[in-house]
Amino acid sequence: MQDLIHQSFSVQFEYSVFFTEKMLALDNVVLAETVHSRSRQDRPKMLTVIDAGLISANPDLPSKLEQYAAHHQINLVAPPMIVPGGEAVKNEPALPDNILQAIDRFGICRHSYVLAVGGGAVLDMVGLAAATAHRGVRLIRVPTTVLAQNDAGIGVKNGINAFGKKNFIGTFCPPYAVINDFAFLQTLDMRDWRAGVAEAVKIALIRDAEFFHFLEDSAHALAARDHGAMKMVVRRCAELHLRHIRTAGDPFELGSARPLDFGHWAAHRLEILTSYELKHGEAVAIGIALDSIYSHLIGCLDAKDLRKILAVLNAIGFRLYVPEIEDPSLFEGLAQFREHLGGVLTVTLLDSIGRGFEVHEIDQALYARTIKYLKDYALTGMVSPPRLSMETAGVAHAHRA
Amino acid sequence: MQDLIHQSFSVQFEYSVFFTEKMLALDNVVLAETVHSRSRQDRPKMLTVIDAGLISANPDLPSKLEQYAAHHQINLVAPPMIVPGGEAVKNEPALPDNILQAIDRFGICRHSYVLAVGGGAVLDMVGLAAATAHRGVRLIRVPTTVLAQNDAGIGVKNGINAFGKKNFIGTFCPPYAVINDFAFLQTLDMRDWRAGVAEAVKIALIRDAEFFHFLEDSAHALAARDHGAMKMVVRRCAELHLRHIRTAGDPFELGSARPLDFGHWAAHRLEILTSYELKHGEAVAIGIALDSIYSHLIGCLDAKDLRKILAVLNAIGFRLYVPEIEDPSLFEGLAQFREHLGGVLTVTLLDSIGRGFEVHEIDQALYARTIKYLKDYALTGMVSPPRLSMETAGVAHAHRA
Repeated sequence: MQDLIHQSFSVQFEYSVFFTEKMLALDNVVLAETVHSRSRQDRPKMLTVIDAGLISANPDLPSKLEQYAAHHQINLVAPPMIVPGGEAVKNEPALPDNILQAIDRFGICRHSYVLAVGGGAVLDMVGLAAATAHRGVRLIRVPTTVLAQNDAGIGVKNGINAFGKKNFIGTFCPPYAVINDFAFLQTLDMRDWRAGVAEAVKIALIRDAEFFHFLEDSAHALAARDHGAMKMVVRRCAELHLRHIRTAGDPFELGSARPLDFGHWAAHRLEILTSYELKHGEAVAIGIALDSIYSHLIGCLDAKDLRKILAVLNAIGFRLYVPEIEDPSLFEGLAQFREHLGGVLTVTLLDSIGRGFEVHEIDQALYARTIKYLKDYALTGMVSPPRLSMETAGVAHAHRA
Repeated sequence: MQDLIHQSFSVQFEYSVFFTEKMLALDNVVLAETVHSRSRQDRPKMLTVIDAGLISANPDLPSKLEQYAAHHQINLVAPPMIVPGGEAVKNEPALPDNILQAIDRFGICRHSYVLAVGGGAVLDMVGLAAATAHRGVRLIRVPTTVLAQNDAGIGVKNGINAFGKKNFIGTFCPPYAVINDFAFLQTLDMRDWRAGVAEAVKIALIRDAEFFHFLEDSAHALAARDHGAMKMVVRRCAELHLRHIRTAGDPFELGSARPLDFGHWAAHRLEILTSYELKHGEAVAIGIALDSIYSHLIGCLDAKDLRKILAVLNAIGFRLYVPEIEDPSLFEGLAQFREHLGGVLTVTLLDSIGRGFEVHEIDQALYARTIKYLKDYALTGMVSPPRLSMETAGVAHAHRA
């Protein structure tokens, strides 16, 4: 008989995601209350890291932060560290090392704070350093892009790229708190403004038909930079992502399923194939288009829904064709996806708008048709895509069983 | 009114700790069943990392592992990686990088295995790599020292040293499984055999008077390398540690309390002051002696219990005096301890054998007397330590209030 002790326990994680405007206005108490509420220090220590991309649009950010900290009894241990923004920040191992070094040098402990202000890539990189210093110091994330506010910046992951693979090194580590300041969105350039909406389309497609219809109605307003519309999109998308993490039963992804990664296997690969010229959200928009077309070709998603999906992506302003979708090595994205998730490939496809389902293989021949379909659609600018022949639909339908 | 979403969820962690002998005997199915039970691969992939210290005593370990893997349909993706044993392995950042590289190169995914075989330091270092690759691949730990089998190797932490600080970089990440193979203990040198018993004394003192009495009765047998006695010590100590993690309510140490670190603040510092010449368990034995004497000096632990504690440590064979205990920088260990835990210093002391309590400051003048006391005791070899004058006890008692 085997002698063993079965160890079993659960760990409770809690954090708040705040939605506000102008968090550094002296009368905005969100950050101050977050820092002071569970601190035993009179002037809690805080190390700040800011995305360089943000500084150019908000050059007075460091001085505003200093004023705010002085006013609210927060001990800024050093001037803000400025790090490059965008995916590049995740490709430079010296950057998390610098942050670890600063955490050491300035005595940031498990009950002190690291404040990370910037896009998703900066939050991911700083998050890894914060999660591994002393096995975790308190990280307050201030996501400043649409993508970071509605998805990457509010979740439980961090990471950097390595060996040519996205997020190869990282941990699951919930933040201490997240502050979504809508005012930052107004200084985004058009590409960053738009890119994050792809994640809203994604989660609407797999979870919430009503939200998809809202996106349909708002697509032109979003393209015209309507602040109110964007706030509603971010708020709802964040809510759906947070609910998924909270209720889907596998926040740390111990299983193989990753429903929120609809459209992502191709997207991750396209980011690499374009040397990250394509932003994550832009790549996700293409991934959504591809997997939606494929869902239609295998006989699931109907043509009307497919047309709506492509039309929304179009109206928001996404470019749905890049030459890299025709690169045969696109399919390496499937292998990398499987490896990252572990063992069994699990890809989410669409039954209808608002309802996803999972498959464990992708027919590459049919996917080649999918790619051709998207190319034709994107380049001819046709409003409605060509319908499938019955024959193809029949062949494809068999794949799902 | 603030707009916020409060996120709250719990994550369930499970793993088994097996106690066995000769795990690589072909008819021992513990490892094979662990690898196959929740795998979808016919021949699950496994990357192995072995402590060099173990190979010298068990030169046939790699070939035995190969035979075992072949017999039990385990795909060893590469010959075992051999890494230096002991604390040095945690001071070399290239080592976890090498393991990450191998995890990438050999396609170890979240449902494949890393098998780490060795002392606590090797398990800590390999654990960090395994926990951060793909945000966590399955780690099977095979602790091969007493210390690793009864404490470090069965818990939820990993880490490496940085900036001259122990475990500065690490994560909380439970293993996939732990296999304690008692046969490895027989090849330990005397220092390693003995060192790990310090953690058993520690947990007995703060949690389990009956176990302490067992250790008193077994001290000479342990010093004489009695295998049966050691198995019982390891089994009970592991059980107490696992129970603490499971039931004390803070497995990932989000609070400040660390009752299991009785004797450890001085121990961590002594390891550094002796350039890791002192093994962790040897340093812990000294730390236990110091904090027990201090507990007595402040009027808590009675003299009879203190004598018993010092006598047990002596009988097991621990050297309780090293010149470094007189180094004034010993007290930097308190600051580092506070910083690592976060904010408030929390040190466990003893009320009586089997019962710890917490204090939040240490009186350095009184601790200087503690050090002198231990030095006198250790160097004169007196069986019973000198008693305190009433005056000192009176002064000291006030400290606890």
